[in-house]
Amino acid sequence: MKRRLSIHNLTPAQVLSLGYLVVILLGAILLTLPIATTNGEGMNFLDSVFTATSATAVTGLIVENTSTFFTVFGQVVILCLIQIGGLGIMCMSTLFALLLGKKITLRERLIIQQDLDQFELSGIIRIVKYVIGVTFAIEGIGAFILFIRFLFDMPAGKALYFGIFHSISAFNNAGFDIFGNSLENFTGDIIVNLVITSLIVLGGIGFAVIAEVYSGKRFKNFSLQTKLVLSVTAILLIVGTIISFILEYSNPATIGNLPLGEKVIASYFLSVTPRTAGFNTVPTGALRSSTIFFTIILMFIGASPGSTGGGVKTTTFGALAAVLYSRATGRDDIELFKRRLGKETIYNALSIVLIALLLVVTVTMILTITEEAEFLDLFFEAVSAFGTVGLSTGVTGSLSIIGRIVIILTMFAGRVGPLTIALAIGERKDKVNIRYPKEKILVG
Amino acid sequence: MKRRLSIHNLTPAQVLSLGYLVVILLGAILLTLPIATTNGEGMNFLDSVFTATSATAVTGLIVENTSTFFTVFGQVVILCLIQIGGLGIMCMSTLFALLLGKKITLRERLIIQQDLDQFELSGIIRIVKYVIGVTFAIEGIGAFILFIRFLFDMPAGKALYFGIFHSISAFNNAGFDIFGNSLENFTGDIIVNLVITSLIVLGGIGFAVIAEVYSGKRFKNFSLQTKLVLSVTAILLIVGTIISFILEYSNPATIGNLPLGEKVIASYFLSVTPRTAGFNTVPTGALRSSTIFFTIILMFIGASPGSTGGGVKTTTFGALAAVLYSRATGRDDIELFKRRLGKETIYNALSIVLIALLLVVTVTMILTITEEAEFLDLFFEAVSAFGTVGLSTGVTGSLSIIGRIVIILTMFAGRVGPLTIALAIGERKDKVNIRYPKEKILVG
Ligand SMILES: [K+]
Ligand SMILES: [K+]
Repeated sequence: MKRRLSIHNLTPAQVLSLGYLVVILLGAILLTLPIATTNGEGMNFLDSVFTATSATAVTGLIVENTSTFFTVFGQVVILCLIQIGGLGIMCMSTLFALLLGKKITLRERLIIQQDLDQFELSGIIRIVKYVIGVTFAIEGIGAFILFIRFLFDMPAGKALYFGIFHSISAFNNAGFDIFGNSLENFTGDIIVNLVITSLIVLGGIGFAVIAEVYSGKRFKNFSLQTKLVLSVTAILLIVGTIISFILEYSNPATIGNLPLGEKVIASYFLSVTPRTAGFNTVPTGALRSSTIFFTIILMFIGASPGSTGGGVKTTTFGALAAVLYSRATGRDDIELFKRRLGKETIYNALSIVLIALLLVVTVTMILTITEEAEFLDLFFEAVSAFGTVGLSTGVTGSLSIIGRIVIILTMFAGRVGPLTIALAIGERKDKVNIRYPKEKILVG
Repeated sequence: MKRRLSIHNLTPAQVLSLGYLVVILLGAILLTLPIATTNGEGMNFLDSVFTATSATAVTGLIVENTSTFFTVFGQVVILCLIQIGGLGIMCMSTLFALLLGKKITLRERLIIQQDLDQFELSGIIRIVKYVIGVTFAIEGIGAFILFIRFLFDMPAGKALYFGIFHSISAFNNAGFDIFGNSLENFTGDIIVNLVITSLIVLGGIGFAVIAEVYSGKRFKNFSLQTKLVLSVTAILLIVGTIISFILEYSNPATIGNLPLGEKVIASYFLSVTPRTAGFNTVPTGALRSSTIFFTIILMFIGASPGSTGGGVKTTTFGALAAVLYSRATGRDDIELFKRRLGKETIYNALSIVLIALLLVVTVTMILTITEEAEFLDLFFEAVSAFGTVGLSTGVTGSLSIIGRIVIILTMFAGRVGPLTIALAIGERKDKVNIRYPKEKILVG
């Protein structure tokens, strides 16, 4: 393969990574300015990079309390980083997802992408405009309802600012808040819960899916991608709510002392936030070990392709679950909704999960060496960073310098990683003409 | 499919499970006898079932100290259970593994197995004889060397008994000891370490592999199965030794205060025992969190098919790693040693790992609810039970009744599960003639 030198010949994966790097660095520099922080000294550079990465990767892990440490200038910088980071990932991945619908291969798609001039540039601009338009529309509606709700608690100007901030943060699955304790003041508040969870789910479901549902087609006419995203998301939300409810039912530090209705609402929120929003309405550190472990699994699965959410993605999970189901029922093909998944899809899904596992395990092991905290808290932190979730049992602020650097890299890898890998898998295709004879091995 | 009613029509998986159940129950009854325990009261039934399951499944988790709680009668019962359990799994899985070499499909193999009379019964008897012969030969050599070594520490009769007990326990990857503190008296003892680790590795590598290596063929002429088992085992042992050495280097509670040579020996032992022996030469509970987490991964992978070891198996791990490697290098086929793995093999490997993960996660979650211990210790216990490893950070003895029952079921599932699943996957084959159209989804 010839090496690419010119910027015009960068691969989409490289453009994505480079773009994020530039935005993060600009954001970090702005956060070091004296006007960014309430103490008038600016943030130190490492923590600025941490915060800018967390915002741009729409993760939400924080080393300083966003509400008290930053001025409104600093908060707006963070909000802009969230919006840029969120739109960036949505546009890039929606383009790939929509092109996927046109039944061209990943390889063909890449070749097209590498030579944009010959592609329908107008089509791309139309898609980007659509994504931005829908984003602002949904965020606007969310901000307006939150504004009305917050009017009951605060003056109009502040209510508007808080409405806009949390609507953007929720739809982009960023998890940043300016209340100082996430949404713990609103554990049983139906309006706030309903608006925020709807924004999170819409933001995490992906644009291709939103577009197809909005088109008014019936479920059975949806693409396999949309059917799979909708079903896996629904199953994860329902199962997540039930299991969180059961596990935390009698925990007085979380939902134990709430009336039944609020218990259900809080359990639903516990089930929504790992997909991969990062807000919390009950203190994450007070959850039972079993709930934390369960949340780790939900965070690892994450949101859907073409969305602001992270993780290995609902479709990846669905594809692997389909393998198990097909084998268990004795089918030769991997079937989903009367469609067949090719082995390339399964192999890609498996590769993504394996790389993600390798990353998460390595990061966890490094953290258990460099940090003082409990294993489960560090495991949680690693998966939260990888999945760009932003939930934490409380160790983020006390991370060592090495720990902070590791989490910065993990957030970055978690953001550009899965998409990059998905592209790279197809990209580095060598011409292998030799086909070796098949031989069986015994597994299990 | 017609239902099978007669015992002659039981599937191999059912025969295996039923056989283990009968042996465990008989063993448990013997352990409740007054002559089995030093206090003359016999063991209570739940703990007897626990101990008998642990011995028959060659796991090695214990609720009472084998050296002090049981009389020689009780210890010999345990030893017999180990030998029966070990030989049972070796014979069953070796038969399947060898038949695999004859390039007949799992389905054909099952049909043959279901109708033994028409199959070469003499061939099967020959294989069983071979397995038993080799087992006793290796155990005999191991026992003899250990006997000589133990003569330096104890009278001849005791040395002989201890030599036989620990040789059988090591080769069958059972992990039971009658020293009372596993092999912690021998942390730096070269003879004991060399003999025990060799027995463990030989026992965990599988008979088909032993037979092929013993045949004198060159590596390049080995079957893919043998090549894969040998390479993955070697890689896991080397990487395991290095990582254990680095992680524990400065831990005074384990290898920190040992001279360099003994540090290396102890690290090697730490790398061997998760494959899935269960002996320990340093206190498992004193290992660092990072080492415990790393050991959990090694235990989950486990030993090789056709052996006494548990886990999802080295070949399963190798097959999935091959997928990642093939995708990363842009190959369409999954290649290993110039051979191609079919998608059925990959799907089976993936299914086994998913079921194992589901089991381990469920068991861990149940334990975090029913037990008081730390998450990491319970996670370790669950994987140790599933992988029939028998290592414990020290929580086994203080498990609640529910915890004991859960671990009993996990040990049983970990023993008969992977093989049963591997068989069942092929077995429940429905006639599915409809082939659905292929459709792509975006993963990652
Ligand atoms: K987030
Ligand atoms: K064992």
